[in-house]
Amino acid sequence: MDTREQEINNNHPDLQDESRRKFLGTTAMVTLAGAGMAIGLTACKKDEAATPAAGKAAEAGGDASRAVAPGEFEVHPGKLDEYYIFSSSGHNGEVRIYGLPSGRTLKQIPVFNIDPMVGWGITNESKKIIGTRPDGSLKYFTGDTHHVHGSYTDGTYDSKYLWTNDKLNNRIARIRMDYMECDKITEIPNVQGFHGIFPDKRDPVDASINHTTRVFCGAEFHIPQPNDGHDLDDPAKWRGLFTCIDAESMEVRWQVKVDGNMDLVATSYDGKLAAVNQYNVENGAVLADMMSAERDACLFLNVARIEAAIKAGKSFTIGDSKVPVVDGTQAANADPKTALTCYVPVPKNPHGVNLSPDGKYFVCAGKLSPTATVIATELVHKYFAGELKEPRDAVVAEPEIGLGPLHTAFDGKGNAYTSLFLDSQIVKWNVEASIAQFKGDKNAKPVVDRIDVHYQPGHTYASMGETKEADGKYLNAGNKFSKDRFLPVGPLHVETEQLIDIRGDKMRLIHDHTAYPEPHDAIIVRADVVKTKQIYNMDDFPNAVKSFGDSRVERKGNKVNVYMTSQAPNYSLQEIRVKQGDEVTITLTNHDKVEDLTHGFGIEKYNINFIVNPQETHSVTFKADKAGMFWIYCTHFCHALHLEMRSRFIVEK
Amino acid sequence: MDTREQEINNNHPDLQDESRRKFLGTTAMVTLAGAGMAIGLTACKKDEAATPAAGKAAEAGGDASRAVAPGEFEVHPGKLDEYYIFSSSGHNGEVRIYGLPSGRTLKQIPVFNIDPMVGWGITNESKKIIGTRPDGSLKYFTGDTHHVHGSYTDGTYDSKYLWTNDKLNNRIARIRMDYMECDKITEIPNVQGFHGIFPDKRDPVDASINHTTRVFCGAEFHIPQPNDGHDLDDPAKWRGLFTCIDAESMEVRWQVKVDGNMDLVATSYDGKLAAVNQYNVENGAVLADMMSAERDACLFLNVARIEAAIKAGKSFTIGDSKVPVVDGTQAANADPKTALTCYVPVPKNPHGVNLSPDGKYFVCAGKLSPTATVIATELVHKYFAGELKEPRDAVVAEPEIGLGPLHTAFDGKGNAYTSLFLDSQIVKWNVEASIAQFKGDKNAKPVVDRIDVHYQPGHTYASMGETKEADGKYLNAGNKFSKDRFLPVGPLHVETEQLIDIRGDKMRLIHDHTAYPEPHDAIIVRADVVKTKQIYNMDDFPNAVKSFGDSRVERKGNKVNVYMTSQAPNYSLQEIRVKQGDEVTITLTNHDKVEDLTHGFGIEKYNINFIVNPQETHSVTFKADKAGMFWIYCTHFCHALHLEMRSRFIVEK
Repeated sequence: MDTREQEINNNHPDLQDESRRKFLGTTAMVTLAGAGMAIGLTACKKDEAATPAAGKAAEAGGDASRAVAPGEFEVHPGKLDEYYIFSSSGHNGEVRIYGLPSGRTLKQIPVFNIDPMVGWGITNESKKIIGTRPDGSLKYFTGDTHHVHGSYTDGTYDSKYLWTNDKLNNRIARIRMDYMECDKITEIPNVQGFHGIFPDKRDPVDASINHTTRVFCGAEFHIPQPNDGHDLDDPAKWRGLFTCIDAESMEVRWQVKVDGNMDLVATSYDGKLAAVNQYNVENGAVLADMMSAERDACLFLNVARIEAAIKAGKSFTIGDSKVPVVDGTQAANADPKTALTCYVPVPKNPHGVNLSPDGKYFVCAGKLSPTATVIATELVHKYFAGELKEPRDAVVAEPEIGLGPLHTAFDGKGNAYTSLFLDSQIVKWNVEASIAQFKGDKNAKPVVDRIDVHYQPGHTYASMGETKEADGKYLNAGNKFSKDRFLPVGPLHVETEQLIDIRGDKMRLIHDHTAYPEPHDAIIVRADVVKTKQIYNMDDFPNAVKSFGDSRVERKGNKVNVYMTSQAPNYSLQEIRVKQGDEVTITLTNHDKVEDLTHGFGIEKYNINFIVNPQETHSVTFKADKAGMFWIYCTHFCHALHLEMRSRFIVEK
Repeated sequence: MDTREQEINNNHPDLQDESRRKFLGTTAMVTLAGAGMAIGLTACKKDEAATPAAGKAAEAGGDASRAVAPGEFEVHPGKLDEYYIFSSSGHNGEVRIYGLPSGRTLKQIPVFNIDPMVGWGITNESKKIIGTRPDGSLKYFTGDTHHVHGSYTDGTYDSKYLWTNDKLNNRIARIRMDYMECDKITEIPNVQGFHGIFPDKRDPVDASINHTTRVFCGAEFHIPQPNDGHDLDDPAKWRGLFTCIDAESMEVRWQVKVDGNMDLVATSYDGKLAAVNQYNVENGAVLADMMSAERDACLFLNVARIEAAIKAGKSFTIGDSKVPVVDGTQAANADPKTALTCYVPVPKNPHGVNLSPDGKYFVCAGKLSPTATVIATELVHKYFAGELKEPRDAVVAEPEIGLGPLHTAFDGKGNAYTSLFLDSQIVKWNVEASIAQFKGDKNAKPVVDRIDVHYQPGHTYASMGETKEADGKYLNAGNKFSKDRFLPVGPLHVETEQLIDIRGDKMRLIHDHTAYPEPHDAIIVRADVVKTKQIYNMDDFPNAVKSFGDSRVERKGNKVNVYMTSQAPNYSLQEIRVKQGDEVTITLTNHDKVEDLTHGFGIEKYNINFIVNPQETHSVTFKADKAGMFWIYCTHFCHALHLEMRSRFIVEK
């Protein structure tokens, strides 16, 4: 291996570790300069508990406290992972499941994309979920998933649903976790740049409803309301809407018109608050205007008051949408005692808001400021009770932690872990120490540890870290640039996902995984929490072909319905005979019951392919536009005679 | 970890190792019985050199000679892999790159699928490669890649091209390895079930051309010729075509009409022979007929004679196709001295044909027979010279190796490694020992070792194993069922890829990777062989917008051309203003030069998304059918101000 690596290094002189650091340093500074930013680059370094090079020492084995023993985190053949990661995939449009600590990809769940393997975007059932145009074609086949969050019961995951957002076409999708597949997609009206998403954890009024019933959605881009060709050039009139979705029906419950661009969302354990970090409270349309104000905000929404206002008829609608909307702008919510919203000022253009597992603190990362802002949940409640002078008084700490702070994770032991985009580090800091420092304790040192990551981390998230069961075991850094980290594969790089052991005082880098661009956020869930079903229930499919004897071809005019079953290594019909020009619907039920015994169904030259898992039914509808004999074959390996598992689609002239 | 694993095991009692074996045993037998097969299940066990349980012992640590030391094959953070795997993805339609030994996915190359991340199937450039209908929509967006092979120079990989097949819509795609992206797709006329693919390695006549200039393609399904609605019910008239593609132009050079269904392809180092394993020489249309004959064939094609015959005008064309076709059926090629083809009889329904690295032997696996058939290259040459009595005389060995043999890999030291689908094993056997045994040496014991894999392996392939540089280091088993091997994720399972150390006498299982269904074949290539470019050359794009100053919006009637550039964190135009109903073409050139600094370009609610890598240009054309203001944003993380990197698409009524 050493010889080979030497050869590669010779071809890529930037791959040696020292050079990597220099490479990174240069890039970060150029990147920063390119933005026309002038923040104090050295300001945050003074109270470092560890040197920036500490992470490298771990790799080189130079720092015993960071050393990982050979094989310490290996998942041996036949052994199972300890955790699931449920991850967004960015503008690939899917959701992914990884195992930890192995980093193995366990599933790609098609959501907003077309997946010919599954038949997602091809079968009638999936097209109905995705949504079609009047001609039957898909309305959208792109998407941009940024966040994945699970449903809660009693403050932790209940393995019922996952939700993810589509920033590109402004849809929310739900995944049922028993089968791990998307079952609903809702397009949100009058929003663009739908970015942040978070389920609630409890009903704000009825505390006995201690599980998720709402999902909150932040819209990043402000637009004319309605966006029908008016107000195209008047940013002062553009607004974003904060949206509440019903967790079960997936219908839009209500929206709130707000100032500023909404980014990420977090929710309190008591169900009363949703928080959104905001940039561009200036409502600017171009970069310079978006950055002109010194402070943006962390916006809090009072859920119970919003719903009471709607009940009291204080809502309006926008354009064609029937969704009730209330006014959450600052101007309309000046009195804290009746306010629907509270805008807590934070340093400008922040990124990310996360709640500590004890529910006490929302942390908003500075991005352009080298700080994190700690906001006390209790004080936000006080604000809404009229007992706080200014929203800013809800801030209890604002430690300097490093350059480009973006997202914060928690270990359940009082420590926060924030990704530093520009420093390319994860910084570990103690929340109570930061509060003491803010109060004036000059001996308080919030920063506990730092570790280099490679390179430019975006989201970071800890095992069970967004639940009351945060266990402080693993942290993942989702890095936006991999550069020289893996074998070169051309200009387009994979992302680096770095797994970090956070059990001890010092963080330890375990290993690098890869991820196809570009995952953003994820959650790490204990394996025992997740309950899945491995076989479908045939009765769940109203169109199931329940016995071989039901196999047939039925014609009504030029519409032909074909009913088939599969059982390895056979389809129940050896041929399907139609006439050129017919509209053909084929319904296929897989009668195999053995776990993992999936069949495929592909028709040569007809652009049709889908699978049926054990006991599953799917259908496709298409026009038989080409005459001739076209083999149907099983595209998903099933049996020793898989190659021979065929049928024929015969189209007579 | 133990507690957690115990919990999972309690929920899944089939996960304990012993139970897995029983589970597997039952499934395999049921599977076999389902096929109505009656082959001797125990016939092959008598000469085993190792017990079937040996593989399990390795996992349990019970067999020291199979034990892998903790961390022995770990790829530590910052270290590079030793090998690339270039792998098909099956009916997902893409090609994937993995690193070995880590098993990390380094790239997914979209080929026959739509990939909204890259913009594959969305940009004008990719749509031109994929092919469109008259209305501009994609002709196909499904595909079924089964094999990936690289171009050769001097009998080993030259890192120029990869080729892959589409079994579903019968296309061959080429990937240029400098950028690792698809640059050509050709639809092959008059074939269905295009399955096997292999580049030639030398010109059959001009030995100085010692590199790939042709790619050979096998068609599995026999069809009416032409397939225009005639002969729909007369299998006796159906035929398959063997196809030769020009490696550079990607045009179809010629085709050969043959008997039987063609499966995989292999080529000799001297460039003179292509080999294809065949099932269904009966030309049956249904399963029972496909299995009626006792023997099928390994078909050899004499490339020089075929090309001479075409030059001599002995070709014809089929239907609308202009491609010259020659007759390679058995009936038309009775005289070996002039024959274009040689059908070497092998046990019925074989699967897989692979050439040993010394070029001496083609090995055809038995599938339904527990044997592998070894055919000497030299004797096939003798057949074509008229010096062999019968094609079957080219067989020099037919060892019994196990149940369900499918594919064979080589270590360059005289050993073959065959995947056993039904036994769920890789069997290591010595080629010369098998020849000695075939000659009558009763002491010869071909089988050297066996190792269990999990479960039901399809392809298996060794590091550099299909080149003269076979190095006998790693072997990968691509298993078709993972069942209980990973954390459960619902009915649809990933595949198990198992990495095996083949350097010693006994195979050692290193670890399990996963792969999204369903990869088939792959090649393992030494890292130093592969040369890529990390930045595009702007001049390679004829439509490049070469300077910021060239940014503009041009109108001709209702066609609007937009020229833009990107440089972090800005697009060169802050708005694009068009009228509802316009046909808009946007061309974007990325002026960033830093490695890995890719930008995305998404338009809200317009289903448009694509990326531009450093110095790359792409364009999209679409109709501005919705009035309003639609944010354009960078979908690929690029900079600390990535979120603020925006523009506006303004559609006036």
